[in-house]
Amino acid sequence: MKEQLNEIKMSYSTHYRTHSCGELRAIDAGKEVILCGWIQKIRNLGGMSFIDLRDRYGITQLTCNSETNVDLHQKVQNFGREWVIQIKGIVAERYNKNSNIPTGDIEIMLTEVTVLSVSDTPPFTIEDNSDGGDELRMKYRYLDLRREIPKNNLLFRHQLGIEIRNYMNNISFVEIETPFLVKSTPEGARDFVVPSRVNNGEFYALPQSPQTFKQLLMLSGYDRYFQIVKCFRDEDLRADRQPEFTQIDCEMSFVEQEDILNTFEGLIKHIFHKIKQIDIDPIERMSYEDAMKLYGSDKPDTRFEMQFVELNEYLQHKDFSVFNNAELIIGIVAADCGHYTRKQLDELVEFVKRPQVGASGLVYILCNEDGSFKSSVDKFYDQADLQKVATQCNAKKGDLILLMNGKKDQVREQLSQLRLEMGTRLGLRKKGTYKLLWVTDFPLLEWDEETNRFYAKHHPFTAPKPEHEALLESAPEKVNANAYDLVINGTEIGGGSIRIHNSDLQKRMFRVLGFSDEEAIYQFGFLINAFRFGAPPHGGIAFGFDRLCSVLSDYDTIRDFIAFPKNNSARDVMLDSPSTISELQLKELGLKL
Amino acid sequence: MKEQLNEIKMSYSTHYRTHSCGELRAIDAGKEVILCGWIQKIRNLGGMSFIDLRDRYGITQLTCNSETNVDLHQKVQNFGREWVIQIKGIVAERYNKNSNIPTGDIEIMLTEVTVLSVSDTPPFTIEDNSDGGDELRMKYRYLDLRREIPKNNLLFRHQLGIEIRNYMNNISFVEIETPFLVKSTPEGARDFVVPSRVNNGEFYALPQSPQTFKQLLMLSGYDRYFQIVKCFRDEDLRADRQPEFTQIDCEMSFVEQEDILNTFEGLIKHIFHKIKQIDIDPIERMSYEDAMKLYGSDKPDTRFEMQFVELNEYLQHKDFSVFNNAELIIGIVAADCGHYTRKQLDELVEFVKRPQVGASGLVYILCNEDGSFKSSVDKFYDQADLQKVATQCNAKKGDLILLMNGKKDQVREQLSQLRLEMGTRLGLRKKGTYKLLWVTDFPLLEWDEETNRFYAKHHPFTAPKPEHEALLESAPEKVNANAYDLVINGTEIGGGSIRIHNSDLQKRMFRVLGFSDEEAIYQFGFLINAFRFGAPPHGGIAFGFDRLCSVLSDYDTIRDFIAFPKNNSARDVMLDSPSTISELQLKELGLKL
Repeated sequence: MKEQLNEIKMSYSTHYRTHSCGELRAIDAGKEVILCGWIQKIRNLGGMSFIDLRDRYGITQLTCNSETNVDLHQKVQNFGREWVIQIKGIVAERYNKNSNIPTGDIEIMLTEVTVLSVSDTPPFTIEDNSDGGDELRMKYRYLDLRREIPKNNLLFRHQLGIEIRNYMNNISFVEIETPFLVKSTPEGARDFVVPSRVNNGEFYALPQSPQTFKQLLMLSGYDRYFQIVKCFRDEDLRADRQPEFTQIDCEMSFVEQEDILNTFEGLIKHIFHKIKQIDIDPIERMSYEDAMKLYGSDKPDTRFEMQFVELNEYLQHKDFSVFNNAELIIGIVAADCGHYTRKQLDELVEFVKRPQVGASGLVYILCNEDGSFKSSVDKFYDQADLQKVATQCNAKKGDLILLMNGKKDQVREQLSQLRLEMGTRLGLRKKGTYKLLWVTDFPLLEWDEETNRFYAKHHPFTAPKPEHEALLESAPEKVNANAYDLVINGTEIGGGSIRIHNSDLQKRMFRVLGFSDEEAIYQFGFLINAFRFGAPPHGGIAFGFDRLCSVLSDYDTIRDFIAFPKNNSARDVMLDSPSTISELQLKELGLKL
Repeated sequence: MKEQLNEIKMSYSTHYRTHSCGELRAIDAGKEVILCGWIQKIRNLGGMSFIDLRDRYGITQLTCNSETNVDLHQKVQNFGREWVIQIKGIVAERYNKNSNIPTGDIEIMLTEVTVLSVSDTPPFTIEDNSDGGDELRMKYRYLDLRREIPKNNLLFRHQLGIEIRNYMNNISFVEIETPFLVKSTPEGARDFVVPSRVNNGEFYALPQSPQTFKQLLMLSGYDRYFQIVKCFRDEDLRADRQPEFTQIDCEMSFVEQEDILNTFEGLIKHIFHKIKQIDIDPIERMSYEDAMKLYGSDKPDTRFEMQFVELNEYLQHKDFSVFNNAELIIGIVAADCGHYTRKQLDELVEFVKRPQVGASGLVYILCNEDGSFKSSVDKFYDQADLQKVATQCNAKKGDLILLMNGKKDQVREQLSQLRLEMGTRLGLRKKGTYKLLWVTDFPLLEWDEETNRFYAKHHPFTAPKPEHEALLESAPEKVNANAYDLVINGTEIGGGSIRIHNSDLQKRMFRVLGFSDEEAIYQFGFLINAFRFGAPPHGGIAFGFDRLCSVLSDYDTIRDFIAFPKNNSARDVMLDSPSTISELQLKELGLKL
């Protein structure tokens, strides 16, 4: 491999340039070089012009003296920001070195300049702190991408992809491309559809994931499959969703859950080692039930503890009807917050009352340094009651206990949000710290009040735990699955399960989900059929590639790692897409608006 | 990296198995092993049962003795082809070794067998020479993919992808994902469109290529971009086309054509070296004009010479009106075919008269061993005339000269087909031999008789050669481009060009293509606009990944390298897609059929 690589030019030298703007050093002094790039900045200082020339690889300072080179100096005065120029000059060591940039020891004494392309004044500054708002930068995304931060994000994404592919290849996973024009299925999120011209009235769908294809590949014997692949969901967009997103999609045969967790723990460790230079600990595991009980969330941020304490037995013996009527009373301890002022406590009450949280209120207990307690429910509970709660919560003097109550699922969800808020306020969700967690033993099904039916918690191909299989029809809500999520710092990075590999069980599953046998066959006949021809036990996992990029880089949004993202209305404001199409196109597709 | 890789299990051992079916050797004799796989075959021979167990990695022979293990022997009798079993047994060296398979030195003496999954009798045999027809195998593609040949093709494709990505990464190319939900454009092939639910009446389009995005990325400063990416064209399918296909899409900034050809010659050399263990010669180059003149094709198969000879001046001086009226008379020499019989010659005449070729006939000259000539036009030409033609064609005694005549473009196209036919008949298009060619200097535009306008030969973003730019409006047909194709063995593998990077020139180009300025802005406004903000000179190339796989493997079709291809009616017969969607879906999209 080495010989081959040496055969071709590894440098940035082309017919237009001898070097990039990021590679010249003091040792190159005296060399005649040709560079190309964008003008970042021009300054004039007492007869000298200084130009910062930028390309993907860095910034190099160019200088031009009004005394020794009158014409050139004159020419340069007309240049503007973001012009593209080609320059010739001599590398010189600088008097005033700039230790902030790798090329800061040198500058280029200009001898020739050619303008390759002029530029209008850009609509915002191409700087780390641009003066352009979000919308403006999205409209001119091609200019936004010139900035250092988006550039580094895209380079990071590329490097992560390379590492993942090589690791997977090294452990015999095969990347197999699955189709994009597939079949629409009513289960799961809404499909994007593609009208067929050849078969008017019929549609393809864009895949929400390659789920059924990867299962077919297991059936075909490709026991280790992966793919980094675009997926599509026509959902109403929330802050951090995109209609098209990228998945690292994986599947294995002849495995149990343990094999899958081990394999992908290996991948994650490799990524952290290579990309973040961090050797992570073995990943902890927690059942879904425990995660909900201790954190009120199936994706807890475990960078900090602050676990839930259930307090019904300590708080339902007095006259406080709010607590007495509650299905569940839970509390968390905010260490060293016993000094919180009325104002700070009111802020927390306001926080839980926000529509996004939706609680009616919050009870607090301040644990004073003198061992006494001050609470918002002093009217109902005496010091001894509060002491018992504090003991149960493991609260110390100087701590703050926050209590919420309500219906079990709801109050857990609400306190989970308060817990994250407290973690943020107390600086416990540190950037650069990574806590990983496998959440396991998810329930197979989830009841939907609105449509009055069960939905698959993961997807309809997830297998019930063998020991729960008999309950599938009689007590579906009690059935768990060997399904698992990988959570990093409170963000779900991936999820998967052991799959059904038996026609009859798959048919039973569809029945539980309310499909008639005919509907199941119409939608998934190919898969049910396939299972009749010798299906291996199999399972897999899929990681959100965009999200993995953002979490590894401590970003909150995936948009920062997508070259040309859509906005919250699923619109590409740069392209101005979607847009109307011609009457002819509609006619060919047999469609009317 | 090595330490990291060692941390995780490199073997195929999971909870279900200790080894794959491809890895045991004589040295493993005596080991107790657990294998999983599909039953390829069961044979009974005098009290012994032999099972061939297959997985992705190979086939291992299992044996079971009716005397020493009655129950197990009995159990195995009920098994059938393609059942999935898990077996335990002891590795033993074979008496009769099978040198055809890597595991042929051993067999497994069974001690336990568990059926993981039974199988119906498959609709065709899972063998190299399957008894299943094309349509049946496509319907059950998941079974077809169990066969050795499709499996090896997909593994080959995976390996090729890995090599390409690593090579590109090593020379600083960044893989950047571009969007799939883009904007429909009327130029080029027909788009697949995706109706928007959020913006009823508007549509996205699926990209025919990431062309405009990669140009924007150049404008953003990412001077070396690539992507292995799905593209979509809603065309009426010919034999070797698919509505979705994969491209290796590449673009570079601050380059001339020479830089691009050198860079990608490096890639192609690397691929041949790593994947085919062949060190190829520097790739020859030929102008489009010469390719058309010498081979009648812009993608000549140069594994054999048989170049065209233009013969007007040697054949238009007699009374043969067919030749006298022809715009062009051209010939090829089929070496050592001077002995062709009347029947063989008639076959060639039939060949050129087929509607696919569409010629009215063919003139032959047999060069006899005695120095005389026998031709189909002896009535018009004497021996001296024929001698002159033979001399001009460089034909030897014993050769056959084949002549065709007609309108220049048409007769070249027709003789090109006859040339390929002769190459095939004479065994000159050898599998395992690779002749590569850069075809350069393509015309910028192509006149379409039907719509009475110019179309871009490559695409509307291709730059005219600087020295031809002035002719763009006055003599568009004379304008050439720095556009190039890579041809391997007569198949176009890739093509690209130097692009326009100037708003005004791009606008002129659209005008020549018959766009009003308003139309151009509506369709490509974002790109024309972008060029106003400092665009670098740039160019690129795109390779057909499916086709590269097939050509490197000496296959005629790309379908053999696609896991789940569509048929010639763009239908996935396995999924039965496209298919109808629900009234609700249509209503949400604001569509009527």
